[in-house]
Amino acid sequence: MAYDFYWISGSTNVWRVMLTLEYKGIPYNSHRLDASKKEHKSPAYLAMNPRGKVPTLKSGDTVIHESLAIMAFLECEHPTPALFGESAAETGLIWQRILETMNYNRYPIEEGLIFPLFRGEASTQPELLRTAASAVNESLIWIEEILGQQPFLAGSSPTAADIAAMPIFQMLARVGRYPDSLNLKLGFDSLPTTHPAISAWLMRLEALPGYEAAYPPHWKT
Amino acid sequence: MAYDFYWISGSTNVWRVMLTLEYKGIPYNSHRLDASKKEHKSPAYLAMNPRGKVPTLKSGDTVIHESLAIMAFLECEHPTPALFGESAAETGLIWQRILETMNYNRYPIEEGLIFPLFRGEASTQPELLRTAASAVNESLIWIEEILGQQPFLAGSSPTAADIAAMPIFQMLARVGRYPDSLNLKLGFDSLPTTHPAISAWLMRLEALPGYEAAYPPHWKT
Repeated sequence: MAYDFYWISGSTNVWRVMLTLEYKGIPYNSHRLDASKKEHKSPAYLAMNPRGKVPTLKSGDTVIHESLAIMAFLECEHPTPALFGESAAETGLIWQRILETMNYNRYPIEEGLIFPLFRGEASTQPELLRTAASAVNESLIWIEEILGQQPFLAGSSPTAADIAAMPIFQMLARVGRYPDSLNLKLGFDSLPTTHPAISAWLMRLEALPGYEAAYPPHWKT
Repeated sequence: MAYDFYWISGSTNVWRVMLTLEYKGIPYNSHRLDASKKEHKSPAYLAMNPRGKVPTLKSGDTVIHESLAIMAFLECEHPTPALFGESAAETGLIWQRILETMNYNRYPIEEGLIFPLFRGEASTQPELLRTAASAVNESLIWIEEILGQQPFLAGSSPTAADIAAMPIFQMLARVGRYPDSLNLKLGFDSLPTTHPAISAWLMRLEALPGYEAAYPPHWKT
């Protein structure tokens, strides 16, 4: 069954699913939507995904959204190479790490810091952004510690936990180099110094099969 | 392998896991922690769960936290009765529904409304709570619509999606009857009138095997 994959470049939710597809070597028809033209709010897209969010995966009559749900679906359909473990204990730990990054890192990084920066709040609310940066640093402590002890979030091999989390941290590294971030001295332009274990982990993930193919195209220019 | 389950009465995160254990008929050693004595912040508990969150499930050397991760673990260990579907499409839809309730309902209900009410903000920030109530009502639209078309969140049978979501909505119904909520006329004391499909769904879930055993004990008094 052919897959149709609908996505927007630079969405962290898209990225984790696209890397899953590429890593597993699953063929798909790529439908890149142009956010500036509101293609994700078109009637045809809203009929598949009523909130107008990306990504969406379609396979025949099956339409799935929510990035982690698509990853769970793909694991059932294409179990090899396994990304959600091969024992109950592995699966439990992988989901635990996914939920920890979503519950404790994603919110401060994306909602607290990156989205306000995108909205231009660096000039209007600098103190709020400095507080947000401090919450981000707080949220990085546990993951820096884990990755100081083992190469990947759930142990010695890459899993869905790494693929789910990675885009959030790559986005933080990228936005940390924005002029607004540098002006405010948020400190996220020097992750290799401040967070060597997270940085080494990101480099390990950059070597994964499929990484280049799933890299957000508009980040390359 | 015997399970040790650590929990606090009234936590929605606890409730979904305890109902999973009871529904599947899995035996476990129950360790109820007393939040008023900070038993979830004791050194012994923090050694298992460094954030001091509940619940935690322990089985030999395997320790899992994050409620949805524990549910995924239990599904692997005890696949019958299935709660995460029996096909890739079912599994994908069940995870989609779980993530939709977590991403679009849990936040406005718990973080936006219930936790501020618990902190006594009804008297200090009444306008903020009315705005939060309005966001909750907005978040209920999609789920009321789904449940008007089918008896459970992922179709005709109860799944992990219903068990994961239910505690959040029971908490909303309970807190909606608190004096502070009534004084502010938040409107959540009359869910059967305002949201008949959600209310009928909650009643269907109250008839599930294990529902009584997993009901928060301190809510009974």
